[in-house]
Amino acid sequence: MTSDPEERLKGEEGIVRLLARLASGAPGAFGLTDDCATIAVEPGTELVLKTDPVAEGVHFLRDDAPEDIGWKALAVNASDLAAKAARPLGYLMALSFPEAPTAVWLKRFAAGLEAAQTAFGCHLLGGDTDRRPGPLSITITLLGTVPCRSMVRRGTAQPDDVLFVSGTLGDAFLGLALRKDGALAGRWGLSPDEAQHLIGRFLRPQPRLALASALSAHASAAMDVSDGLTKDLARMCEGSGCGARVRFSDVPLSAPAAKAVAADPALAVSAVTAGDDYEVLAAVPAPKAEPFRSAAAAAGVLVSRVGRTHAGRGVVLEGHDGRPLAIEELGWEHFRG
Amino acid sequence: MTSDPEERLKGEEGIVRLLARLASGAPGAFGLTDDCATIAVEPGTELVLKTDPVAEGVHFLRDDAPEDIGWKALAVNASDLAAKAARPLGYLMALSFPEAPTAVWLKRFAAGLEAAQTAFGCHLLGGDTDRRPGPLSITITLLGTVPCRSMVRRGTAQPDDVLFVSGTLGDAFLGLALRKDGALAGRWGLSPDEAQHLIGRFLRPQPRLALASALSAHASAAMDVSDGLTKDLARMCEGSGCGARVRFSDVPLSAPAAKAVAADPALAVSAVTAGDDYEVLAAVPAPKAEPFRSAAAAAGVLVSRVGRTHAGRGVVLEGHDGRPLAIEELGWEHFRG
Repeated sequence: MTSDPEERLKGEEGIVRLLARLASGAPGAFGLTDDCATIAVEPGTELVLKTDPVAEGVHFLRDDAPEDIGWKALAVNASDLAAKAARPLGYLMALSFPEAPTAVWLKRFAAGLEAAQTAFGCHLLGGDTDRRPGPLSITITLLGTVPCRSMVRRGTAQPDDVLFVSGTLGDAFLGLALRKDGALAGRWGLSPDEAQHLIGRFLRPQPRLALASALSAHASAAMDVSDGLTKDLARMCEGSGCGARVRFSDVPLSAPAAKAVAADPALAVSAVTAGDDYEVLAAVPAPKAEPFRSAAAAAGVLVSRVGRTHAGRGVVLEGHDGRPLAIEELGWEHFRG
Repeated sequence: MTSDPEERLKGEEGIVRLLARLASGAPGAFGLTDDCATIAVEPGTELVLKTDPVAEGVHFLRDDAPEDIGWKALAVNASDLAAKAARPLGYLMALSFPEAPTAVWLKRFAAGLEAAQTAFGCHLLGGDTDRRPGPLSITITLLGTVPCRSMVRRGTAQPDDVLFVSGTLGDAFLGLALRKDGALAGRWGLSPDEAQHLIGRFLRPQPRLALASALSAHASAAMDVSDGLTKDLARMCEGSGCGARVRFSDVPLSAPAAKAVAADPALAVSAVTAGDDYEVLAAVPAPKAEPFRSAAAAAGVLVSRVGRTHAGRGVVLEGHDGRPLAIEELGWEHFRG
């Protein structure tokens, strides 16, 4: 299309050519040369589907590395599938650019996507590219599979289930704050490596796909934590017709996050309610709690007990003294304001 | 969520509630209360997948009726499936609003989608809604099925195939012009009904799903005409390693379009190259041409012969005198300029 990699790509065909290698492992993508893709689903399995767009200024920043943007666009969808115990299979991607990308930007973006699809075990199947005003946005629809009727649901938690979360929460919120204001690292007493850890958690979510078998064997319900623990837990409880109590001190924080919160205690609640975590929240019947924890550990994923469901209604976050915390805003809301 | 239908909806939940009825026919959509949807694919069939976003200012106008916007968002995807001989099954939808919609807008939008999904035989499976700057955009990913390995491809035309298009071309281009400048109807000598016919073709594309069995029985290649006949045919020929000649006078025009072109001959080339037609272009081996035409007619779809492929390269549009027309721009290009 162009010999200057910094020149803006003219025409959708040039973009498709640069993305075609992402589709090379999927015969039904036809090298992105057809209008539709085709895919066969193994007998005994069914599809699990998710579409979750990311947009500049909302999920990533204008100056984020294109590799990170590509990774994140796929990872936020894979995270949903991870919580459903599904295995990613393939994805379609609609790209919307305010101005045509350069070849170098697109190659770096594709490299990030390629790293993600290799890590998650799926391929690009097809998509669409157009130019329109507004922020750069990437809308991926991810298809995965589960054995028939084995998807782990969100609204099927039972009273007295043990609530687990994977990994640590709050890192991405703190990482985003650091991305916007590097001076915070000093104020929070973080080493460069610690600050980088938090920023990395914002830029490169790690979908907990390794939890699939632990979840399908043990969880009564699960979902990924993307809009904040309290808000997402409230959704699980509402769908399940139960309530929940979470002990604030049981919410797992990474060492750098704990350091930041110690330096500025006002961050504590935001760190566990702000979202962008892409960890798994699971409700597990009490007798299966220990087997779930072991199975997760065997799969290389640390899960922490954070609370219990109960037969009542509502979600309460308990402070250190056992009293409910007053939380102005229980999670991230796309339409607030 | 709100008792005033003109009030803007606050919160994604209110939007989901209004869309949930679109998912009521799909058990695996879980009433839009889970993070993912699930769907089973019948044995012996495989999936055909397409994502094609529509955006305000590109595919529809700000003051188009919400019902028409909903219809078109699904129809443009169903049109791709129609050309592949696939049967729509379900769809995911990512909605991006610059400002929260009102309940009345969203209900009307959902009514248009509902009419479309009823006409096309599919259901909403899941989706996502967010608010961000830029035009209103609707990104639908449509899943359909075909018997295994029977998808009609784009790049498999053979030399000496007969080229057919369904319906009539150019109507939507003229309809859009009329939407923008009502005075054109008078200049083109169109009755109000004729003008309305062209506008309706812009607002409500009719995917040619009825052509599925005719296409799979007879076509060597097919695609939908969305970016203009010449550009889309060039893609088919490029993928197939052949060339094509199309006779301009054989391109089917509706009576109102023919009237407009007669009044302003400068419109003629645009009418067959501008795109937004959502008709099917099919390459059919000559011995199967008449059986294809009959099968299409039996399915209620008029198809017209417009030209032939040949073993060479390139696409030529021949004028009335048999000489190639000089066409500055052979189709609609997302990244032109």
